Amino acid sequence: MTTFEIPSEQWAAVVEKTGGPVVYKKIPVQKPGPDEVLINVKYSGVCHTDLHAMKGDWPLPTKMPLVGGHEGAGVVVAKGSLVEDIEIGDYAGIKWLNGSCLHCTFCRQADEPLCPHALLSGYTVDGSFQQYAIAKANHVARIPKDVDLEAVAPVLCAGITVYKGLKESGARPGQYVAIVGAGGGLGSMAIQYARAMGLHVIGIDGGDEKGQSVRSLGACAYVDFTKSPDLVKEVKEATPDGLGPHAVLLLAVSEKPFQQATEYVRSRGTVVCIGLPANAYLKAPVFDTVIRMINIKGSYVGNRQDTQEAIDFFQRGLIKVPFKTVGLSQLQEVYELMEAGKIVGRYVVDTSR
Amino acid sequence: MTTFEIPSEQWAAVVEKTGGPVVYKKIPVQKPGPDEVLINVKYSGVCHTDLHAMKGDWPLPTKMPLVGGHEGAGVVVAKGSLVEDIEIGDYAGIKWLNGSCLHCTFCRQADEPLCPHALLSGYTVDGSFQQYAIAKANHVARIPKDVDLEAVAPVLCAGITVYKGLKESGARPGQYVAIVGAGGGLGSMAIQYARAMGLHVIGIDGGDEKGQSVRSLGACAYVDFTKSPDLVKEVKEATPDGLGPHAVLLLAVSEKPFQQATEYVRSRGTVVCIGLPANAYLKAPVFDTVIRMINIKGSYVGNRQDTQEAIDFFQRGLIKVPFKTVGLSQLQEVYELMEAGKIVGRYVVDTSR
Amino acid sequence: MTTFEIPSEQWAAVVEKTGGPVVYKKIPVQKPGPDEVLINVKYSGVCHTDLHAMKGDWPLPTKMPLVGGHEGAGVVVAKGSLVEDIEIGDYAGIKWLNGSCLHCTFCRQADEPLCPHALLSGYTVDGSFQQYAIAKANHVARIPKDVDLEAVAPVLCAGITVYKGLKESGARPGQYVAIVGAGGGLGSMAIQYARAMGLHVIGIDGGDEKGQSVRSLGACAYVDFTKSPDLVKEVKEATPDGLGPHAVLLLAVSEKPFQQATEYVRSRGTVVCIGLPANAYLKAPVFDTVIRMINIKGSYVGNRQDTQEAIDFFQRGLIKVPFKTVGLSQLQEVYELMEAGKIVGRYVVDTSR
Amino acid sequence: MTTFEIPSEQWAAVVEKTGGPVVYKKIPVQKPGPDEVLINVKYSGVCHTDLHAMKGDWPLPTKMPLVGGHEGAGVVVAKGSLVEDIEIGDYAGIKWLNGSCLHCTFCRQADEPLCPHALLSGYTVDGSFQQYAIAKANHVARIPKDVDLEAVAPVLCAGITVYKGLKESGARPGQYVAIVGAGGGLGSMAIQYARAMGLHVIGIDGGDEKGQSVRSLGACAYVDFTKSPDLVKEVKEATPDGLGPHAVLLLAVSEKPFQQATEYVRSRGTVVCIGLPANAYLKAPVFDTVIRMINIKGSYVGNRQDTQEAIDFFQRGLIKVPFKTVGLSQLQEVYELMEAGKIVGRYVVDTSR
Repeated sequence: MTTFEIPSEQWAAVVEKTGGPVVYKKIPVQKPGPDEVLINVKYSGVCHTDLHAMKGDWPLPTKMPLVGGHEGAGVVVAKGSLVEDIEIGDYAGIKWLNGSCLHCTFCRQADEPLCPHALLSGYTVDGSFQQYAIAKANHVARIPKDVDLEAVAPVLCAGITVYKGLKESGARPGQYVAIVGAGGGLGSMAIQYARAMGLHVIGIDGGDEKGQSVRSLGACAYVDFTKSPDLVKEVKEATPDGLGPHAVLLLAVSEKPFQQATEYVRSRGTVVCIGLPANAYLKAPVFDTVIRMINIKGSYVGNRQDTQEAIDFFQRGLIKVPFKTVGLSQLQEVYELMEAGKIVGRYVVDTSR
Repeated sequence: MTTFEIPSEQWAAVVEKTGGPVVYKKIPVQKPGPDEVLINVKYSGVCHTDLHAMKGDWPLPTKMPLVGGHEGAGVVVAKGSLVEDIEIGDYAGIKWLNGSCLHCTFCRQADEPLCPHALLSGYTVDGSFQQYAIAKANHVARIPKDVDLEAVAPVLCAGITVYKGLKESGARPGQYVAIVGAGGGLGSMAIQYARAMGLHVIGIDGGDEKGQSVRSLGACAYVDFTKSPDLVKEVKEATPDGLGPHAVLLLAVSEKPFQQATEYVRSRGTVVCIGLPANAYLKAPVFDTVIRMINIKGSYVGNRQDTQEAIDFFQRGLIKVPFKTVGLSQLQEVYELMEAGKIVGRYVVDTSR
Repeated sequence: MTTFEIPSEQWAAVVEKTGGPVVYKKIPVQKPGPDEVLINVKYSGVCHTDLHAMKGDWPLPTKMPLVGGHEGAGVVVAKGSLVEDIEIGDYAGIKWLNGSCLHCTFCRQADEPLCPHALLSGYTVDGSFQQYAIAKANHVARIPKDVDLEAVAPVLCAGITVYKGLKESGARPGQYVAIVGAGGGLGSMAIQYARAMGLHVIGIDGGDEKGQSVRSLGACAYVDFTKSPDLVKEVKEATPDGLGPHAVLLLAVSEKPFQQATEYVRSRGTVVCIGLPANAYLKAPVFDTVIRMINIKGSYVGNRQDTQEAIDFFQRGLIKVPFKTVGLSQLQEVYELMEAGKIVGRYVVDTSR
Repeated sequence: MTTFEIPSEQWAAVVEKTGGPVVYKKIPVQKPGPDEVLINVKYSGVCHTDLHAMKGDWPLPTKMPLVGGHEGAGVVVAKGSLVEDIEIGDYAGIKWLNGSCLHCTFCRQADEPLCPHALLSGYTVDGSFQQYAIAKANHVARIPKDVDLEAVAPVLCAGITVYKGLKESGARPGQYVAIVGAGGGLGSMAIQYARAMGLHVIGIDGGDEKGQSVRSLGACAYVDFTKSPDLVKEVKEATPDGLGPHAVLLLAVSEKPFQQATEYVRSRGTVVCIGLPANAYLKAPVFDTVIRMINIKGSYVGNRQDTQEAIDFFQRGLIKVPFKTVGLSQLQEVYELMEAGKIVGRYVVDTSR
């Protein structure tokens, strides 16, 4: 069995008060409890949620001070006495759901993301923006040894989330799904997962550059909301029978698309809300929703099974995530770019620098 | 084989222009086409939709002049050459869906109420407020001979609709369903169907009288929105674990309950919209809908299988519908009471007077 | 917080070598690990599986020496450091599945009974035929305080198992299910669960006495295989449309009923195998299975969610289990009666004598 | 609107008595009823079922004299008065299910292949081995105008059937399906449909030549039953976690594979029986089926929705069917090759010669 020397101190990016900024500093390394593992995080993706956690603008309080991060990929270097199915040296991932009670009615039905006692990485417990992070062994993602830890990091939240949304949509191979926000980071992953699942994709976003990206990833149509004279009509016409897509994935960060989706989705179709625009409301006319039997549902992060499936698609080379890596010490700069809306694709931080 | 003498003229209640009134007069009896039957309607329930059809205030145009009615129970007196599985003398029911194409993608998947070519009784084709009505043989409800035609009439739309909504809710035996508008005509049927399906019911409505009715039909709890200081809290506490009902059935005719339901439904639960308040909107906070994975869906009328199942529950004596019978000639008076909001339970018209 | 004095020694019924007999003797009380609880078992049901475990005639080796029993109801008297959602003094149940890994692909999907690392009470780990038994906290059944521990004991395996089988059958409220072995201990519970789930029951068994019991529990028909000239025909005719039941539950201990069920089940229907006759084979003609699209499936014990649901039906008074209680010291006599086929209903042992 | 001159006589391949042979001769052209279309069949695939129909060795009597064939692709040249959604000149396909009652409990639930009144092309009604064939308009396959009628013919039975089987298997994108008989005509289509649905395929068949074909169509593994020392072990090991495929498709014409499949399928997995070896029996050990919760189900032909979906995959170029075309006048020779087991891939007959 491999063993690792574990230091007593490590580098971490710490939010010391709500509002930020994030401070790059040395903090102690924790020890895992009986049901926990200690992961030497190598890389961690940066997600909009991390910025929300620092700013404290979501209706859910964070731990403070806080080490953010919930897309951490690394190596297990220590484990508690009850941990049997993970070996020291295994690859593992820290995801949004750090732990859950494993016995409430949600956990019992494989809906652990809904557990009222869930621990959230980088939000209610310290996350992956540090070199050594703790997680519940039953919840860490199992990452096969042939997977590139740098490239897989963004899959651990963004990838799982869009994959889960596609599963929740109920769309079957051969059917059509519209992806709103198809040209962004989540969108590009969603297109690839959808294609790997045998779905046809109608990408919706703004601008020619996004259109090229969307088409190059295999979407059969691109609808540009900055140019379309009648978006609802154009989306419906992108399906061969003109009845509209069987499902819609809403990755948007503004409110309007949430209200158009019920107009172009096929009767009996499903609109899946994933994005979390601040203070936004779903709004749909009752009459149309009823007589067309439309289904509007929220999809949160994936459960542990979704996690493994999403990684499996990645491992097979079906999901390419464009990302840019910087040092963990530069995290504050990444947040500033994000705040300014200047990020295309995902940023990954390297915890070694 | 029984034969029936079919007159050339009959009594009918005719809406001669949008806005009404309905006129009781003699009109010709039609002949069935090859795939149709002619039904001697004995009784027909009166539904809010009939009033909407007369007033023309729904975003869907009606036939004009129009014979309304879509809860007609009667006897088959003639049939077309292609009709093999119905005999002259059989009992049959005219329901909202008079016919559909039977081949579009919705019909092929047993979602014929969504057929773009659907014929709607008492709306786009003449309905059951006449003594002899035509319907597509493949769509008429099959009514067993031991069923009381007068009592079953309101089941043919109201009963099927609430039963369908309960099926769509996905609630399983032993789970909880909240019914908003539990004290009304639809509500009382919904409680009984829910109980027959092994569900626990939390009735929501206003006033003590409705509370007594709701409890007497087997609801385990009644929440009075006219008195409750915190309706959301009270509904959640009516479930043993305090997590709220697994499903909500919205039979309400005002907008507000559509917006509270997402607050008290259990995480992963389903809010089924059935009622059609004019110009109402569903509105739900995106954040809560996503992180609690709530499902909001519209449920329209049942398909043909739902119809037979709903009748089957009725035939077994599990569904008692309080109704009051008047002559077809008095229909205009019923509409006036309905307009004034003075109807409790269902009215049934007897076409013989 | 209540505390309990825990003795160092206790009475237990121990199988010291494969083949038996079971010996009533004093053994040490164990201490729970961090994720375990210690339950003071008050009552334990006796199941055929316990006899198989003693005799060692199943294709799965047992622990030896062995304390059998997997229907134990009692009080939690000690717990490990990680156990948060159970308090000392709570009622809890020991069921067949004592523990599982909680992370394999089956556990992740709420199919923990299929976990390759499952611990089986009274089979691969010591069970409930002792005064103080250990179980994984995440797996013990939560029993509400108003439940009678003596009466609930047989629900913890038999009840859960038949309830799970009914769920697996896919039969919906209003549909028909045939129960083979309806007059036995499992059968009588299955009828009651089926009725509570809104199903119609056709009971199949042998003899008049069983027929009376089956009908008194609410079955709509009884088919006596000792008398029926054509069992397949008779079962089909017990459904109003003559197409046969939507599902069949096979609780039989002989092989023949496994082969008749595919003949009388409705096309597209499901035959659920639950009973485990030694060395029996399912056998069905390929032609008929294919063109009638019949589904034959095995159903093992319930998962943790099924467990809580099955207890919930019991708590509401919907499930009455006839049982006879004797002292734990008399267990060997119970096995002898069981071996001789002389048991009707369930035996429960009282661990205090 | 296009019109076609319809002759009064046509060439057909007629089975004049059970046992055959098939006689190439002139017979009258029929006229369509109100709900029927007349199709000028251009090409028709030849299926094993046609041989069974001629020989009369299935437990279901045929019409006699009989025009066989149920994979006919052609042009609609006449239609009845009720047919609204098909135009003269449209492409259409005759499939196994020529018609059904459209109102029984099976038809109402989109399971029209189970309709007790189903009309079977080339079996209980005349089929597509003639130049002009009648079919119920609601049941003919709609074929888009850009589809090659010669190439699509075998999809109309073989393609739909394997596609339906894959849907029935419940396997989701990213999961594994074993296909028994992967090297044959049905098998090669099944591999392609499975790949288009995002599934991983383990092909099972005999011989190196079949192995090459199986791999070239995209299977991730090939298991050769003529060489494998332990087929069950080899199939399980072809899945990354060694637990076996999530589903098995049995296209075999011998009995043995029906009995091995339950051994290598994953726990909770599904074995779908499609092939119809004469007088074969499914046989599975009860113990293993129960404790591993295995599902064995028969899958017959697809319904109308499955038909359109299967054609849609073909239209997109995802399904290539190797076939060989001969004149309809040579049908008897094809039967002789088939009887001798000398056919690889599908034969198609051209009705013009």
